[in-house]
Amino acid sequence: MAIRTIGLDGDDTLWHSESHFVVTTDRLVELLEPWLTDDVAAEGVEQRLIAIERRNLALLGYGVKAFTLSMIETAIEASGGSIPTTAIQEIIGWGRDLLAHPVELLDGVADTLEGIGGSYDLVLITKGDLLHQESKVAQSGIEGLFRAVEIVSEKDPATYQRVLARHGAEPSEFVMVGNSVRSDVLPVLQLGGRAVHVPYHVTWALEHPESSDAEFPTITSLRELPPLLDAWGQRVP
Amino acid sequence: MAIRTIGLDGDDTLWHSESHFVVTTDRLVELLEPWLTDDVAAEGVEQRLIAIERRNLALLGYGVKAFTLSMIETAIEASGGSIPTTAIQEIIGWGRDLLAHPVELLDGVADTLEGIGGSYDLVLITKGDLLHQESKVAQSGIEGLFRAVEIVSEKDPATYQRVLARHGAEPSEFVMVGNSVRSDVLPVLQLGGRAVHVPYHVTWALEHPESSDAEFPTITSLRELPPLLDAWGQRVP
Repeated sequence: MAIRTIGLDGDDTLWHSESHFVVTTDRLVELLEPWLTDDVAAEGVEQRLIAIERRNLALLGYGVKAFTLSMIETAIEASGGSIPTTAIQEIIGWGRDLLAHPVELLDGVADTLEGIGGSYDLVLITKGDLLHQESKVAQSGIEGLFRAVEIVSEKDPATYQRVLARHGAEPSEFVMVGNSVRSDVLPVLQLGGRAVHVPYHVTWALEHPESSDAEFPTITSLRELPPLLDAWGQRVP
Repeated sequence: MAIRTIGLDGDDTLWHSESHFVVTTDRLVELLEPWLTDDVAAEGVEQRLIAIERRNLALLGYGVKAFTLSMIETAIEASGGSIPTTAIQEIIGWGRDLLAHPVELLDGVADTLEGIGGSYDLVLITKGDLLHQESKVAQSGIEGLFRAVEIVSEKDPATYQRVLARHGAEPSEFVMVGNSVRSDVLPVLQLGGRAVHVPYHVTWALEHPESSDAEFPTITSLRELPPLLDAWGQRVP
């Protein structure tokens, strides 16, 4: 089938995101250094943070507010409760900084999407805090290139099915493009759609996929997307 | 114009919500009692919490995670930093309890919506945490009565305009029903639609409207909605 609709992930596909979380995690590690219990000092603060994020995921979901609450829990647990409240205020401030951080598009994003926007329906499919994602889309300067923006709480096959149905797109006519094999690639392949992996230089631990023998193309920059789509065949005008 | 589409708010219109926040706020007041600075003791913990929620609203938005972060900030500020970290863990636990709380429909909701669902398109329009709202809708047992569920980050005229456009509904054919004059009534009247106010027994301070001379019907229970709609005239089949 000819391709009609291209889904694009937001965080770490169109704009930088995880790199800001990495910087913040490094700050947390440094902040907690003098207060660590022996077991967390041995295990590592990052490991404890990831475990707490994993524990919180089903209830708190994705995004900066969930991350901030997980950092606070990590600070208290990892210090055996000895962390001063000034440190907790500092952590809340980091969360605020993450939410207020300007949107920085990845290289080639605007040019590439402008180039293919005339040939395909572009749909932004992103997960995280509703308000924060909306604010990033509005700031991005490329909102007008998308036929629709879908902010979802989880990226599983059922979610993609719902989004495709809403836009009258068949999986066989759909290509998803994103940095997460777990969220952007595998669920779409499972539905019978196509997917392109554009790795970001860092990947959040909770986005690491289970091992999979699925086959899909990987590109190093969104600039490599148009020739790949050409090879797959454009929609009949 | 005949009415075709009924918008329904979720929290405090279809199911209890604010009453759980009130109970949690009472717990916060009690928890902080021994630690208060003189100025907060005089001003009141609730006033400080509301001020912090108001300060955080633009960046954190609505919902339990924002409320939890605001409670933590309140605890630290109101105690001049003297609150122990065990208290902060307790507050985070209350946030988790709010997110995990079972959905309790208000009296008459299911019967009423079943009754009018055949005559009108019902659309649930609710704001808050994306994942939490989805989870409440899924648990509510009435999701199947709605043609669509719209979870939004703010309820202003632009949002209602977008939602109505998506469903091909004209404001003149639309009635919004909800407990908040500020979020459910005034923005819809401003668009040229109709709105019905169903007050809940408590209203969050940030939902108190500016004074307004707008006129709209107020009902004490959703059970009073069908006769009101009948009086306005059903859509032509």
